[in-house]
Amino acid sequence: MKLILASASPRRKELLSYIGYEFEIQVADINEEVFLNEDPVTYVKRMSQEKCQTIARNFTDAVVIGADTIVVLEGDILGKPIDKKDAEKMLRALSGRVHQVYSAFSIITPGSGIPRTRSVCTEVFFKELHEDEIHTYLEIDEPYDKAGAYAIQGVASKFIPEIHGSVTNVIGLPLFELEEELKTIEGLFHG
Amino acid sequence: MKLILASASPRRKELLSYIGYEFEIQVADINEEVFLNEDPVTYVKRMSQEKCQTIARNFTDAVVIGADTIVVLEGDILGKPIDKKDAEKMLRALSGRVHQVYSAFSIITPGSGIPRTRSVCTEVFFKELHEDEIHTYLEIDEPYDKAGAYAIQGVASKFIPEIHGSVTNVIGLPLFELEEELKTIEGLFHG
Repeated sequence: MKLILASASPRRKELLSYIGYEFEIQVADINEEVFLNEDPVTYVKRMSQEKCQTIARNFTDAVVIGADTIVVLEGDILGKPIDKKDAEKMLRALSGRVHQVYSAFSIITPGSGIPRTRSVCTEVFFKELHEDEIHTYLEIDEPYDKAGAYAIQGVASKFIPEIHGSVTNVIGLPLFELEEELKTIEGLFHG
Repeated sequence: MKLILASASPRRKELLSYIGYEFEIQVADINEEVFLNEDPVTYVKRMSQEKCQTIARNFTDAVVIGADTIVVLEGDILGKPIDKKDAEKMLRALSGRVHQVYSAFSIITPGSGIPRTRSVCTEVFFKELHEDEIHTYLEIDEPYDKAGAYAIQGVASKFIPEIHGSVTNVIGLPLFELEEELKTIEGLFHG
């Protein structure tokens, strides 16, 4: 049975490869707007479901995984920054504080139609950032395609003295939990 | 002033590059034997000091960083596995349990002679490993040059649902703490 990852993220592709199944990538273009009064966990789960369902409609004989990641600071959702100014605002907000990273994934198997969805939360501690640290970081590519405008597996690792929870969840795909779910599905092949 | 990293580890080299200083690599060959009744923290600090001092003796006008990483399971030190059988034994021991990863670094500045040394501890939770997971993991290169026979930034990330503490410390160099120390040294240049 074919396995599809409905994500454009190269980090998710690399992480999923560690589980060992053969898979292919299909990117779902969805509306990422947050509903009025939608709470962060509901939102991240819905995003992972919509990506999953969009692809599953066109690949009815495949197992499809959708995933989404958000940074949550005191209840507010930070997605990917839209530009440099937005990234700067996010880094300033995260500086010297603790935030939560939520990743959700959804899985649809052939014939089921209804996605199985899980979300995982990791607490991330950011050091106090100096002005010059923010500006130097904004000069490289790293912050621009990441939720919260930083990558824990990159240069921003020096900003993070501590996390509590899953590392892969912060990168974008909670591997331990995802493998638990994929193992219950019959007919997936190792690469 | 020249900065030297006294480590052969490509992970440490990559991590140190994130701080932004120019540096070069000089590898110190030291005796890594554990002294009788030496506790893990004393040992990992001593290793980082000996690497640092060995290189500093030959590069007296440079700032030298030495570092070492160990895995500690219920008080026992796990270093790098000597062969496949040893790696297998380590993975079996870590399976389904919590362990500590300690990295220590030492810094010697020109004229001082006495290293400044710090160690950092991260708690790592391992899932219960099945026989076939251990055997599949032992077939790849990843476990063989790593303390505890696993790499948190690689395939073994799927074995680790949770950590408490610094991520870079588990990879081999606690970047937040190292940058704090390097910032107090005058005359280091950004690359």
